[in-house]
Amino acid sequence: MQDNAGMKLFALNSNPELANKIAEGLGVELSDTTVHHFSDGEIQINIDQSVRGKDVYVIQSISDPVNENFMELMVMIDALRRASAGTINCVIPYYGYARADHKTRPREPITAKLIANFLTLAGANRVITLDLHAGQLQGFFNIPVDHLLAIYEQADYLKSKNLDKNVVVVAPDHSGVKNVRNLAELLKAPIAIVDKRDKNRIDPETTSVIGDVEGHKCIVFDDLIDTGAKMVDAAAVLKQAGATEVYGVATHPIFSGNAVEELKNSELKEVIVTDTIQIPAEKQFDKLSVVSVAPIFSKALSLIYHNQSVDSLFNKNDNI
Amino acid sequence: MQDNAGMKLFALNSNPELANKIAEGLGVELSDTTVHHFSDGEIQINIDQSVRGKDVYVIQSISDPVNENFMELMVMIDALRRASAGTINCVIPYYGYARADHKTRPREPITAKLIANFLTLAGANRVITLDLHAGQLQGFFNIPVDHLLAIYEQADYLKSKNLDKNVVVVAPDHSGVKNVRNLAELLKAPIAIVDKRDKNRIDPETTSVIGDVEGHKCIVFDDLIDTGAKMVDAAAVLKQAGATEVYGVATHPIFSGNAVEELKNSELKEVIVTDTIQIPAEKQFDKLSVVSVAPIFSKALSLIYHNQSVDSLFNKNDNI
Amino acid sequence: MQDNAGMKLFALNSNPELANKIAEGLGVELSDTTVHHFSDGEIQINIDQSVRGKDVYVIQSISDPVNENFMELMVMIDALRRASAGTINCVIPYYGYARADHKTRPREPITAKLIANFLTLAGANRVITLDLHAGQLQGFFNIPVDHLLAIYEQADYLKSKNLDKNVVVVAPDHSGVKNVRNLAELLKAPIAIVDKRDKNRIDPETTSVIGDVEGHKCIVFDDLIDTGAKMVDAAAVLKQAGATEVYGVATHPIFSGNAVEELKNSELKEVIVTDTIQIPAEKQFDKLSVVSVAPIFSKALSLIYHNQSVDSLFNKNDNI
Amino acid sequence: MQDNAGMKLFALNSNPELANKIAEGLGVELSDTTVHHFSDGEIQINIDQSVRGKDVYVIQSISDPVNENFMELMVMIDALRRASAGTINCVIPYYGYARADHKTRPREPITAKLIANFLTLAGANRVITLDLHAGQLQGFFNIPVDHLLAIYEQADYLKSKNLDKNVVVVAPDHSGVKNVRNLAELLKAPIAIVDKRDKNRIDPETTSVIGDVEGHKCIVFDDLIDTGAKMVDAAAVLKQAGATEVYGVATHPIFSGNAVEELKNSELKEVIVTDTIQIPAEKQFDKLSVVSVAPIFSKALSLIYHNQSVDSLFNKNDNI
Amino acid sequence: MQDNAGMKLFALNSNPELANKIAEGLGVELSDTTVHHFSDGEIQINIDQSVRGKDVYVIQSISDPVNENFMELMVMIDALRRASAGTINCVIPYYGYARADHKTRPREPITAKLIANFLTLAGANRVITLDLHAGQLQGFFNIPVDHLLAIYEQADYLKSKNLDKNVVVVAPDHSGVKNVRNLAELLKAPIAIVDKRDKNRIDPETTSVIGDVEGHKCIVFDDLIDTGAKMVDAAAVLKQAGATEVYGVATHPIFSGNAVEELKNSELKEVIVTDTIQIPAEKQFDKLSVVSVAPIFSKALSLIYHNQSVDSLFNKNDNI
Amino acid sequence: MQDNAGMKLFALNSNPELANKIAEGLGVELSDTTVHHFSDGEIQINIDQSVRGKDVYVIQSISDPVNENFMELMVMIDALRRASAGTINCVIPYYGYARADHKTRPREPITAKLIANFLTLAGANRVITLDLHAGQLQGFFNIPVDHLLAIYEQADYLKSKNLDKNVVVVAPDHSGVKNVRNLAELLKAPIAIVDKRDKNRIDPETTSVIGDVEGHKCIVFDDLIDTGAKMVDAAAVLKQAGATEVYGVATHPIFSGNAVEELKNSELKEVIVTDTIQIPAEKQFDKLSVVSVAPIFSKALSLIYHNQSVDSLFNKNDNI
Repeated sequence: MQDNAGMKLFALNSNPELANKIAEGLGVELSDTTVHHFSDGEIQINIDQSVRGKDVYVIQSISDPVNENFMELMVMIDALRRASAGTINCVIPYYGYARADHKTRPREPITAKLIANFLTLAGANRVITLDLHAGQLQGFFNIPVDHLLAIYEQADYLKSKNLDKNVVVVAPDHSGVKNVRNLAELLKAPIAIVDKRDKNRIDPETTSVIGDVEGHKCIVFDDLIDTGAKMVDAAAVLKQAGATEVYGVATHPIFSGNAVEELKNSELKEVIVTDTIQIPAEKQFDKLSVVSVAPIFSKALSLIYHNQSVDSLFNKNDNI
Repeated sequence: MQDNAGMKLFALNSNPELANKIAEGLGVELSDTTVHHFSDGEIQINIDQSVRGKDVYVIQSISDPVNENFMELMVMIDALRRASAGTINCVIPYYGYARADHKTRPREPITAKLIANFLTLAGANRVITLDLHAGQLQGFFNIPVDHLLAIYEQADYLKSKNLDKNVVVVAPDHSGVKNVRNLAELLKAPIAIVDKRDKNRIDPETTSVIGDVEGHKCIVFDDLIDTGAKMVDAAAVLKQAGATEVYGVATHPIFSGNAVEELKNSELKEVIVTDTIQIPAEKQFDKLSVVSVAPIFSKALSLIYHNQSVDSLFNKNDNI
Repeated sequence: MQDNAGMKLFALNSNPELANKIAEGLGVELSDTTVHHFSDGEIQINIDQSVRGKDVYVIQSISDPVNENFMELMVMIDALRRASAGTINCVIPYYGYARADHKTRPREPITAKLIANFLTLAGANRVITLDLHAGQLQGFFNIPVDHLLAIYEQADYLKSKNLDKNVVVVAPDHSGVKNVRNLAELLKAPIAIVDKRDKNRIDPETTSVIGDVEGHKCIVFDDLIDTGAKMVDAAAVLKQAGATEVYGVATHPIFSGNAVEELKNSELKEVIVTDTIQIPAEKQFDKLSVVSVAPIFSKALSLIYHNQSVDSLFNKNDNI
Repeated sequence: MQDNAGMKLFALNSNPELANKIAEGLGVELSDTTVHHFSDGEIQINIDQSVRGKDVYVIQSISDPVNENFMELMVMIDALRRASAGTINCVIPYYGYARADHKTRPREPITAKLIANFLTLAGANRVITLDLHAGQLQGFFNIPVDHLLAIYEQADYLKSKNLDKNVVVVAPDHSGVKNVRNLAELLKAPIAIVDKRDKNRIDPETTSVIGDVEGHKCIVFDDLIDTGAKMVDAAAVLKQAGATEVYGVATHPIFSGNAVEELKNSELKEVIVTDTIQIPAEKQFDKLSVVSVAPIFSKALSLIYHNQSVDSLFNKNDNI
Repeated sequence: MQDNAGMKLFALNSNPELANKIAEGLGVELSDTTVHHFSDGEIQINIDQSVRGKDVYVIQSISDPVNENFMELMVMIDALRRASAGTINCVIPYYGYARADHKTRPREPITAKLIANFLTLAGANRVITLDLHAGQLQGFFNIPVDHLLAIYEQADYLKSKNLDKNVVVVAPDHSGVKNVRNLAELLKAPIAIVDKRDKNRIDPETTSVIGDVEGHKCIVFDDLIDTGAKMVDAAAVLKQAGATEVYGVATHPIFSGNAVEELKNSELKEVIVTDTIQIPAEKQFDKLSVVSVAPIFSKALSLIYHNQSVDSLFNKNDNI
Repeated sequence: MQDNAGMKLFALNSNPELANKIAEGLGVELSDTTVHHFSDGEIQINIDQSVRGKDVYVIQSISDPVNENFMELMVMIDALRRASAGTINCVIPYYGYARADHKTRPREPITAKLIANFLTLAGANRVITLDLHAGQLQGFFNIPVDHLLAIYEQADYLKSKNLDKNVVVVAPDHSGVKNVRNLAELLKAPIAIVDKRDKNRIDPETTSVIGDVEGHKCIVFDDLIDTGAKMVDAAAVLKQAGATEVYGVATHPIFSGNAVEELKNSELKEVIVTDTIQIPAEKQFDKLSVVSVAPIFSKALSLIYHNQSVDSLFNKNDNI
């Protein structure tokens, strides 16, 4: 790792554990800042050191509580801009609201674009994020976006567990087949799709598996686990279709609502996520494994700080 | 009231009671909209009727939970803009973050400006608000701001209670003396100031009253009651200085933290606020009176909708 | 159809046939404009009637020659804005550069966003388009986008040909499975996927079909046909996998390079496209069928002009 | 003082004396520029040296002739931007139009915001100013504002004259009480307020002093002296109320209209201002003292140029 | 003239005479507004009637005192925008700073563009002006510009004086030859050019007349008369070259510095200008004639207000 | 030449010959980039090296095919911005659409401004161009424009050919007389004008020469040669008027339509242009001479890269 001593690295409240790991990887200290929520709910931020002319990196996931975390980031950027920071680089391991990226019904908002507009207006000069729900979100910005990928670390983890043998990579619905194809190529495995016809929970009448899974281990691969229903339902259907073991792999562990209970009681043998969202102790469970994305961010931030290309991080492009 | 049937009036979640009163005053129905908070904390909004080309008014206070309420408003504006609303008029009875209107220490944000920038960027065409913490906030906007005043209703209430006889209007600290002067003129009363030297809770050593209050009733007048400490301390000091009765009058009842307990147990005989912020049942108490601002908003919205001047609302200008 | 006489409808050079049909459907005349390409390649536009204060609709596909057609549209918008048009509504049946919607390699442009930014900057107030390559492109805009769908007309055509019997809807690669699911639901048919592993032309070694097609008719469904290779290769693979007949269905007939020859000589029994892009006589061939989208546009423009909701156009939302 | 040789420091026409002092304090020469007013009233500026890539500081008060001085600054910024200056930093010792910071009647402009917008649009990257009429003006900008304070120098001057003994700090009306409180704390003195009821010149019937001034020296403290009426009237009222001596202290000596005559003939024993606005010889008078703000600006510019925090300048924050 | 009663027409201080004539031509009253210059030089504007939703037209030439008049216009626009005017249309008979339209030396401003940017930023929706120094200034704006021409009125005046017989139209230097060609065509006359080699006053050594003027009447034609030197020198040279009579014709009578004296004492037989700039009594002289442009503006404003094309005003385009 | 090794210099497709010469003059290699036009007409650009934080210079003339070349430049800027280039400097030897710089008829576009807006919006930080059709185009930009001049090289060439003896510099119409005056001064020659009355090809009835050319060599001087008609017609008229030889000198060799044939067969003895636009082999002809502007660009880029003033390039200002 090169010398990153000139960076100013700040962490807000969403994910201090990841921020500490990233800082460690960079060999720098997190700078001091105080983020206070007043009793009336307003956020106040005090930055305790001069940032004039500095390249500042702020780490914050837009995770639950989504709006609080987002506004923390906005207020921080405003403070940094007014404090004459040289450049403001937003490190957003999990970009919330990403699924609100197009209108699916009349008169819907496109909140993912609103988030992008606000980041830019507040004063961000660059966004560094990972595994966006759709690659098109890069185009919601006019400022540079460095879009990192966890897939190589995920593939390495699976290989280390021998999960590249006799394995099928499965898309839990129709929208993520391309990502499934990418992981399948890294594992040299075939693919399958859970073909769910309606938008509610799975109905065995209308759900089927496209592709051959009988007698194989299955890796259900998605970008995030929210309520867990999609992953859990896929596991049930795959088991019914003859899969021997089912593994759930995703980047962002949102784990909202009943997710933890559902996952624990599901047919899934192991749930493998990353630490883009901090998982509180009460949401951790035995068959959960966490692959850290901190090394990816540390390397990327160092390269960016030194004006070097981040594509050296990847042996392939993000299309894989 | 003129015919307002062409208006589209929407209420978000912060203050349905006030919204209903405003709608009633206007003689229109609130339009249907569904504001949903997902289990992962994200907001989704569905607008249930066409708004193409319509003049839309959205009522939302930026009150506790401040960031949730603010983001509801932002997402709503985005949805309206994309749904081709004719004009988007934001009715913000309480403009939160208004006290973060300048830097008091190095490297602080000016969140009130951030809020103004986001409103404009999201697509608001006009803001209608009431008793801003500082009139200068109008200048944070480039779009038109209609700044309404509760002071005439407040004065009328006080007169109806004979609180314009043998009364002194008191500023609880040094920053709101001008508003105090304005109320004093409407009541034809003298003024006084509680002169608190340090920024923490009152210390009898360093606090004194400037102006003559002995043997008089006192009306402590401020724009908002947050934790209640300022109002409660002022009442104590005024009683010590010989005031016979102390009344607390403010527009915005934030009532955060211990406010309700403190106010109940204070020297204040009555606490008179408005309904810009909805007060939940558990925060109501015996000596609390609420003057509604709904008539002010109903009249203003009707005038604005009909492209008429709102200054007919006020017999004096907003400087009084 | 309501009275649309107040509209000003203009057609540029990309697709006069479709424009004439849309005008006919609306019951209005196309307004006169002269688009001249000088001998040095520059475009000059003269608008022959006053447009002051008028709602103007300009029809132009961003189809080959893409840059010429795009610049015609830009120059037209500039002329309209300077001529004080009331609103400028861009009707873009085919939105070119839509596939350049995210970075797939370092240092790539996102030209679809550039197009969106230029449309807005030039002065467009609204975009009306059809079957965008990705729904997320709506979020590239801050102005309203009306995103129309051809899928109901496409399904009706297929049903009229009995192509909803014993049929499988097939995605030619991994990225369009969701659209395939949507058409399959309208036809009450199962789905399958051509699983092509590398990015070049099909290699029988590495390509397989996921899902059961043997003994069935197949409808390969995509948003566009460019060089035709993807459609042609899919047909070959499906035939090899036992399909009885293969039909190619897509919205946008780009037909670049050798497409026409390839399609003619392919295993495809019929190629069914729409008229978003004008197909010159020399590119037409026997097994080509064209479903017109003119009725969709005529209805949508009339609804928009009268400030009515376009969702009445669709019995389902655009997620189907 | 650090080495500031790389700065480009320019002075326009409003206050060459202060500019020279600031330059001297910084140890740099003022760069050559020619500001010419043509016989038809237009301004032309020629910058006589290259500024490409340089950090440029332009010193100009927006003082009488306000519009001429403001436009000089605007034209200069335009020239610098087009000449590829690296950063353009506007040093505005007196920010004119600052009192037009909110609407006090319907259909009024907010010219202070217009000024802020124009500075930003013209190309300013930063504003460095002193004792703004209201701190909220910082929020009129999205670019960084360094808001300097003269109060420590003013307090030091008063202490050096023993004006911290037996003294009361007096607000001449209701709007500046907070600043008065701040100075009072530095002098460890009590405060009082001149309570003027109508907006015109003082009427003994309706004016009174709140707080105890009898037998004390009074320091009337305001941010600026315009026509002098407010200061002169306050002195008269205070004398009538028993003050032994009255001193007028303010930052910005506008001295418009009859100010000089009024101040000379007033009850004020001494008028103490700063040099943010240049006082021509004919406006100087015996009891006028000037405290220079040049050292504050020199120190601040050097810190800013070297990307160091300016809060080291102040032993307290700007709220005092 | 159509019914213009719905217009709101305002005049600022630069040219009340012309404004009154325009109002008369339109059949409307000028709306009341008070433009006050405080003793400290700041401008305050009070608009005395509601403008909500109205089409507002503000008449102001950017003439001497240029910066005062320009800032009056800016402040007025800000007030109108904040008062919710429907559209703000700036009628600028003389657009000052128009000659600062490109850099002629390094590090010069382009103040004409700054003016355009400020007009737009302040909130203008349209500019209506006349005889811009260069037509390219239209391109300095993104908002619509209606560029009117005085040349038909000027030609009519000259014909009415028989100045289309035995006459040569002369350009006083190299930059206005195209305009001279245009007038010559209307008068069916030949042209000539005064070929002055250096930029200072005329030197008989280096000045000559290109084209044949001997024995002819000459009309020196320019867009403006500033110091008068160019016009006066041209007359002298033309007389020397054998012209029988010389007439000076220009649109904008700036008459700065010694212009009136110079013109009076010159070889010019008559000086013919328009009233875009108000000529004070002391600047009028015997051989001065004024052609009013009020009818052009009245007709144009009425057409614009009724959303009709202004080209009906001209029997030829502005290229003539 | 200073060390320019840190520059990143890119050439797009319009003029590789000039780009190579500029690179050679700078002593740097052109950086690799692949500009691909897909078979459907869309442009794809891959930049083969990291540009993070670099000062990037992109060379592209907006010459025929104008819209293709312009879009190449736009797409390249978008890619560079997203790839985090430090500064993006557009080197545009020929700025196409420059003649569309004002409205000459109602409802015309001002495409030259559209081009300027798009350049800025796409992300350009600076434009470096040469011999703009009108200097006012500098004012179409808010970013810095370095406007270079070929006239000194043109004059030197003419002097080297003894074309400053017994020579008259002639404007081919009324709009370029000022440039003609400038060249005439460098050659110490008199001037003349071809006075063409209508806008079509020359009619001997209505065309005459103003100024004395009989027995002289004539240099017809213009900024560009498009169809050649203006230059060819001027030569014919001048010969008729007694000129001994006629030379055509212009900066930009557009040579559209029949230009080459017309020029070859004309009365012109020599046609002297520069290499701002690449002339394909089939458009070269015997009497054509090309003066390279590469040295001007090399010197200018080096000065700009080193933050030095470019006016050292010119011994006179650009007004000459």
